[in-house]
Amino acid sequence: MTRKKEQGIARHFAARARGLEASTIREICRLAGIPGLVSLAGGWPNPDAFPFDFTAEAIGRLMAERRGEALQYGMSEGLAALREWLAGWLGQKEGIATTPDGLVVVAGAQMGMELTCRTFVEKGDVCLVDLPTYFGGVGSLQFYGAELVGVPTDGEGTDVDAMAAILARLARRRRRVKLAYVQSIHHNPLGVNLSPARRRALMALAGKYDFLVMEDCPYRDLCYAGEPELPLKSMDGAGRVVYVKSFAKIFSPGIRMAAVVADPEAAGKMVVARQFVDCCPSNLSQFLLLEFCRSGAMERHIDEMRRFYARRRDRMLAALDAHFPPEVRWTRPTGGFFVFAHLPGGMDAAALFQEAMAEKVAFVPGRQFYIDGSGASTLRLSFAQAPEDKIDGAVEVLGRLIRKRMGSKRGS
Amino acid sequence: MTRKKEQGIARHFAARARGLEASTIREICRLAGIPGLVSLAGGWPNPDAFPFDFTAEAIGRLMAERRGEALQYGMSEGLAALREWLAGWLGQKEGIATTPDGLVVVAGAQMGMELTCRTFVEKGDVCLVDLPTYFGGVGSLQFYGAELVGVPTDGEGTDVDAMAAILARLARRRRRVKLAYVQSIHHNPLGVNLSPARRRALMALAGKYDFLVMEDCPYRDLCYAGEPELPLKSMDGAGRVVYVKSFAKIFSPGIRMAAVVADPEAAGKMVVARQFVDCCPSNLSQFLLLEFCRSGAMERHIDEMRRFYARRRDRMLAALDAHFPPEVRWTRPTGGFFVFAHLPGGMDAAALFQEAMAEKVAFVPGRQFYIDGSGASTLRLSFAQAPEDKIDGAVEVLGRLIRKRMGSKRGS
Repeated sequence: MTRKKEQGIARHFAARARGLEASTIREICRLAGIPGLVSLAGGWPNPDAFPFDFTAEAIGRLMAERRGEALQYGMSEGLAALREWLAGWLGQKEGIATTPDGLVVVAGAQMGMELTCRTFVEKGDVCLVDLPTYFGGVGSLQFYGAELVGVPTDGEGTDVDAMAAILARLARRRRRVKLAYVQSIHHNPLGVNLSPARRRALMALAGKYDFLVMEDCPYRDLCYAGEPELPLKSMDGAGRVVYVKSFAKIFSPGIRMAAVVADPEAAGKMVVARQFVDCCPSNLSQFLLLEFCRSGAMERHIDEMRRFYARRRDRMLAALDAHFPPEVRWTRPTGGFFVFAHLPGGMDAAALFQEAMAEKVAFVPGRQFYIDGSGASTLRLSFAQAPEDKIDGAVEVLGRLIRKRMGSKRGS
Repeated sequence: MTRKKEQGIARHFAARARGLEASTIREICRLAGIPGLVSLAGGWPNPDAFPFDFTAEAIGRLMAERRGEALQYGMSEGLAALREWLAGWLGQKEGIATTPDGLVVVAGAQMGMELTCRTFVEKGDVCLVDLPTYFGGVGSLQFYGAELVGVPTDGEGTDVDAMAAILARLARRRRRVKLAYVQSIHHNPLGVNLSPARRRALMALAGKYDFLVMEDCPYRDLCYAGEPELPLKSMDGAGRVVYVKSFAKIFSPGIRMAAVVADPEAAGKMVVARQFVDCCPSNLSQFLLLEFCRSGAMERHIDEMRRFYARRRDRMLAALDAHFPPEVRWTRPTGGFFVFAHLPGGMDAAALFQEAMAEKVAFVPGRQFYIDGSGASTLRLSFAQAPEDKIDGAVEVLGRLIRKRMGSKRGS
């Protein structure tokens, strides 16, 4: 094998590149394009919800009025006007105390996590991640050689008591924890919120053991039950939380816009680091986002998105209640895109996936979200992308297949 | 010092982040915004040359016609239609034999170099870079721990005979070279082309010593003397050249678009690697670029850009002939944005910079482009950004200051 590899370009690969393989989940998400398939898989937002008219109108105006800047390079930290606006808005809406020099505009949340890890994570650093959690954050940590330790979750997200026990055990072995990767609001894939008590406990642990928190928060604004929780960053007096705020779900993913809020000294390092990643964010996207923010269009759009996705969430929960056997447990999200389900009796979600695909229904087997290879009996269902009137039918198919597998298991 | 640092967020920094400092050249480029200053410093294109009307019109159309895709996430490798178009165009225009699976759309040339180094470069790998060369490519190599070896240049760019001698010397010490960072066309900062004989010799060396070539080519299309040279990638039968093609100068930097052409197996690795950098390129930017390419607007725009920048190049060369003392040597670029000059008698370009700034003229002291700290008597002059009618006056100021320093030197 090695000899064969050495004949091609692979002989030049860095060790870190040799092991790189396309993630199963991304391959599953590619399937969304199959004609007739109903995808409950991808975490992509529904394009029916994107602000097309606003974009056309705003860019028309920008091209007339901002000729010096709108298509030019920009500073690596992002547009000053956008950073100022966001600092004020995050203060008012999310309780985050920051100045523009603690805020870096990046090309999507993934780049925020890349820059966080580039700045902080060294080979062998112990980092905590939820079981299950989003693989994008995990990928950035792993790239920089983090040693990942899984923290159990339950119906309220991260099990902070379990986290405390893990930290104590690691401390006894003189292992310091460098960073915890956390989603406190509308967790992906769990679809749940960390309770106020757990939030306080988690921040107390971060202080006690002096670790950083990488808070990934793409879904906060998509809340279907009153006002969303405040992020952990709002409780961060010590500058230990790096907050990654995505605009993919409240504007659109296609403009690749997110912001990182960090201690200003750390933000300064990220700005220098990013000069060798992508130089600077897109001015076209930044001016468009700035216009969206300043004009009030964003607030109106968020309201609309909440109604749009809440209807889909309701449809899915009703369908689950109607079609899934009571032995299946699932979360009841108050925001975001996902329901996370546990199948009974060790049922294999990957096998279920194959059967569902044969009936043109896709979801993501939950194992993809567990760093320890567990979670074989779990699945993530997204209500974001499927047409509203297809959700019930797709869930019905899954319910039928689950019952069938339960029956055959009972019979065996 | 260390104790003090340890009280702040810096105690958590990864070793790689501690040493990161903002580059002098970027700080100089920030000065471009000073009122009344004539900047011959930045490598930014002139915003008078951006396709504003095309952008407004094309985006208006996209928002009406591409609602499913134009603001959505996309695949990490980039839009299939764009990659197909570019593969055909690069074949026809640049003699590059590639299929779409060897082509990755990235958010600017810097990200192309980041992904190249992420895929190939390991700590301690010996990599060759020109003396002088663009610091962006150097930064990516250094981030991955490359051991850089400088290769002398002359009026024709990389001195390939010197490169051969360096390779032979390294081979005697049993040091393999992993990669050479090369700009064969309209070099930054030199402003020159590698001659056909040198191009062949360089590719022969790459074959003989089995190293990769990272070919950074942002300025090729901006050619002011007939048709530009073909890139080294056009001579690459072995898949050892990674070609980074930027659209910053032929469309605009504000859309952050470039393409990497590589061996398909390597391109596949880059696609997976980039999933943890920025997930995917901006669909908004990609559709805009695709429309620019397919509509024929790009070819027309390139023709216009050539005339636009050729006039500025002519102005600068005429001003240099008129105002610089004959003891200064400078390049006569046939493309790109830059003239590179050597001052006589070891004159300090950094001191000249201070004096010029006092008279509101900026340029980049050339030392920034030398990895070995040499080049103290060199400077880079950009004719891209300054208003056409200000170029002569700015060069006159520099000429006067140089003569003054020559006089005082003679007198001392």
